[in-house]
Amino acid sequence: MINEALRLKAESLKPRLIHKEIRPAALVEVNRDETTFMKYSAKKISDITYPISLKGGESIVLDFGNHYTGYLNLSTVTLGQICDSPVKLRFIFGEMPHEIGISPEEYKGWIGKGWIQEDFKPIVFMPYKGSLERRYSARFLKIERLDNAPFPVGITDIYMDATSAVDLESAPKLNSGDELYDKIYNISLNTLKECEQDVFEDGPKRDRRLWIGDLRVQALTDYYTFKNVNLIKRCIYLFASCIMDCGLVPPYVFQDSPPYVDNWKFQDYSLYLVSCLYDYLTETKDEEFVKELWPIAEDQIEKAIGFFMPYKENYVDRFFIDWCPDLDKAIASMCTVAYVVKQAIEVKKHFGMDTSVYEGYLAELKKAINYHYDEESGFYTKGQLSWHSQIWAVLAEAVEGQEAKKLLIRTKEADPKYKMQTPYMMNFYIEAMVKCGMKEEALSYIREIWGGIIDAGFDTCPEYFDPKNPEFSAYGGHYINSCCHAWSCTPAYWLKKLL
Amino acid sequence: MINEALRLKAESLKPRLIHKEIRPAALVEVNRDETTFMKYSAKKISDITYPISLKGGESIVLDFGNHYTGYLNLSTVTLGQICDSPVKLRFIFGEMPHEIGISPEEYKGWIGKGWIQEDFKPIVFMPYKGSLERRYSARFLKIERLDNAPFPVGITDIYMDATSAVDLESAPKLNSGDELYDKIYNISLNTLKECEQDVFEDGPKRDRRLWIGDLRVQALTDYYTFKNVNLIKRCIYLFASCIMDCGLVPPYVFQDSPPYVDNWKFQDYSLYLVSCLYDYLTETKDEEFVKELWPIAEDQIEKAIGFFMPYKENYVDRFFIDWCPDLDKAIASMCTVAYVVKQAIEVKKHFGMDTSVYEGYLAELKKAINYHYDEESGFYTKGQLSWHSQIWAVLAEAVEGQEAKKLLIRTKEADPKYKMQTPYMMNFYIEAMVKCGMKEEALSYIREIWGGIIDAGFDTCPEYFDPKNPEFSAYGGHYINSCCHAWSCTPAYWLKKLL
Repeated sequence: MINEALRLKAESLKPRLIHKEIRPAALVEVNRDETTFMKYSAKKISDITYPISLKGGESIVLDFGNHYTGYLNLSTVTLGQICDSPVKLRFIFGEMPHEIGISPEEYKGWIGKGWIQEDFKPIVFMPYKGSLERRYSARFLKIERLDNAPFPVGITDIYMDATSAVDLESAPKLNSGDELYDKIYNISLNTLKECEQDVFEDGPKRDRRLWIGDLRVQALTDYYTFKNVNLIKRCIYLFASCIMDCGLVPPYVFQDSPPYVDNWKFQDYSLYLVSCLYDYLTETKDEEFVKELWPIAEDQIEKAIGFFMPYKENYVDRFFIDWCPDLDKAIASMCTVAYVVKQAIEVKKHFGMDTSVYEGYLAELKKAINYHYDEESGFYTKGQLSWHSQIWAVLAEAVEGQEAKKLLIRTKEADPKYKMQTPYMMNFYIEAMVKCGMKEEALSYIREIWGGIIDAGFDTCPEYFDPKNPEFSAYGGHYINSCCHAWSCTPAYWLKKLL
Repeated sequence: MINEALRLKAESLKPRLIHKEIRPAALVEVNRDETTFMKYSAKKISDITYPISLKGGESIVLDFGNHYTGYLNLSTVTLGQICDSPVKLRFIFGEMPHEIGISPEEYKGWIGKGWIQEDFKPIVFMPYKGSLERRYSARFLKIERLDNAPFPVGITDIYMDATSAVDLESAPKLNSGDELYDKIYNISLNTLKECEQDVFEDGPKRDRRLWIGDLRVQALTDYYTFKNVNLIKRCIYLFASCIMDCGLVPPYVFQDSPPYVDNWKFQDYSLYLVSCLYDYLTETKDEEFVKELWPIAEDQIEKAIGFFMPYKENYVDRFFIDWCPDLDKAIASMCTVAYVVKQAIEVKKHFGMDTSVYEGYLAELKKAINYHYDEESGFYTKGQLSWHSQIWAVLAEAVEGQEAKKLLIRTKEADPKYKMQTPYMMNFYIEAMVKCGMKEEALSYIREIWGGIIDAGFDTCPEYFDPKNPEFSAYGGHYINSCCHAWSCTPAYWLKKLL
């Protein structure tokens, strides 16, 4: 059931997008290159001189100089000769060079191949001026002439009508005095900007939808940078307007497209409505908005608690946590509930509401979590040793103070087999370190991971980053991975907060 | 050099196109079928019931029930499930079933494969409502879902925004009392209507341009049917505005696209400016327009005469005549000049101008033509026996009266190896028969050829029609042939005139 009143409030907060015409910076060639992280590199051939000539069967690769999200526009003429049969252009967009180097036909993953950024345009008469209907997310663009006609086509103008709800110029600079921190801040900011469109998208290349787990960390970062509070409010309203029949907040919504929600359920994601409201109250002090949606938030807690008391089997399938294959999510799942209940207690205290029931939940949860603490090894484990269980135990305050700090240090030394696969999960590791007063370690980790992302050649923060396995993908093909994914943008938040 | 004043006059006569929304009449399947002329047939599966469901990897074929030229519009939704990855649709348009049955990849002809009526559309979010940018010419439409996503897409509406400068309803009916004549008249009219767009196009599928040889026969037919005189005037102005550097009227023009003309030269086509003006004067009695352009018309005659006096080698390469392979065009070429000079003399007489120079040209030309008459065989021949030379000798009045009639009868009996390949050339055969008083033979020929076109399953008159060689093509692939070609529409003219 859609709550139309809340949807209308979301609609009224729809941003007016900022448009910028971005023209390519260079003609490049893309080649296999084993020396680079993604195994392909782009080498500049020349500056752009109009018209760019393209004969039948030929192709070119353009480099826009940075990552942009938007609509391709182009103008073409014939160069002297008549255009006596239609020109067929194929466009392949790439956030990184490997998406240009690998051909679409090579993708065999399970996630819809419709996400491949490939398009076609037949041009019957010249001169032509037009655009592609679909929005693309790219730095690189390959244009191939599929027709066999001998006359050359001249591209007289080509640009991305790049869109975003925010402008990089409007965000504060970091100016840390440290070049790497500044670079990490900028790449994070660029990622967030690219994902702020009609809603906070998870990634402008793939999914392009509003996930609440992603929203929460995007919003946290946005409060410290673009301060686009209306968009945060809009997105929270969208979730609140789309409660599923089972009572849960859906993990993601489509803002314009009924059915607005799918039948996926992530219990942790539903709970993050509480986190979103907690953060909103903390950062804006706007009580009205939080009060309006608080009953829905409390409902998410009741639903989650229902899984654990009495204890139910298989509840862990209902938590996301991370994309780490074969991860046992039991401990981390309980911890996320505790983490959110703690935030709920803070909100209730702020409003002078009774917190005794939630205090009770929290105590029970901590007991259940600590039941899985293995004295011998010194880790939270249920037969499987993972980074996730330790980090979440700290965030749940199942372990506190020096003991928590020691747990994190032990975890780093042990480097469990089950590792953080997404910068989204890595963000919780940073949060855990900060919680334990390990500010230097947190900063050093940001330098290591996001510095690595920069070294790997990204202009934005990717969906996955595993330095030892560049081709990791949860979808059976790294070609379809998003190289600009909002859940990886949090260093801008941490650097603003910690430096 | 473009004559801007004349181009502006052409522009001011640009028609306002009539738009009609044409929805498909049935779902069909197309199969190889050796019993049909083009070796493929479409069989109805069902009526259309919306939404039309289409799963990933599936395809459907729609039948619009008749030939239409226009822009495809469609609306889609997801059927229950969420559209969680983009849908990629491929569209293949066919004027006839074989264009659906044969795949685009099979085409190996020399003419630009950009003419293949294939398009693509990525749809990222549902519900979707949109259109294809390129105009297509088709009765059949195959829609293929190229993405592998499992959710079904529902087409809730689909139609051709069909365009034409004229409306079939506005043309007089034939009502001959003979079903076949009426059918031939209707198919011819349908062809002409489909080709009347911003200009008289040769074919809405391929070329889509204004050829003067085609214009002349289209205009003749239009005077007796749609009476769209402004469009005829507009097209003649377009040719007059685009005189080539060599002084010739170009064989075709692009109305909106500089360079407006190519460097092709067809002497007979240049001369047809005279024929266009002659017909215009005859049918409309509008002297002003003919007077305005007459100097350009006379210039075409002077240029043509320059080829024959003194005689020049290789001039025949500069005449079109027909698409018959290896045809020796020498005799037919001289004849077309004589044919046009005769028309010019008529116009000059009408305006009281001196005709002595043209009379002299005509006498010289007839002498030259008759130099090639072979007394022994009774045919015009220069080593090669063709239908074309005999027909054109009659039209040039190199032979007249009963002798001309006998020549045509002898030709039919001999059935020369070099045959008429296009209904365009067949039209001149009809004209020659009518000239010789062979009205019944002309009508019987129309029944034979255009009746054959109807039997072959066409909804419009094709570019080529060789009953013994359905796959004939001047382009190395019949797949690219136009099944709706204006130069084949003349039976509507002849039936109106003769019955």
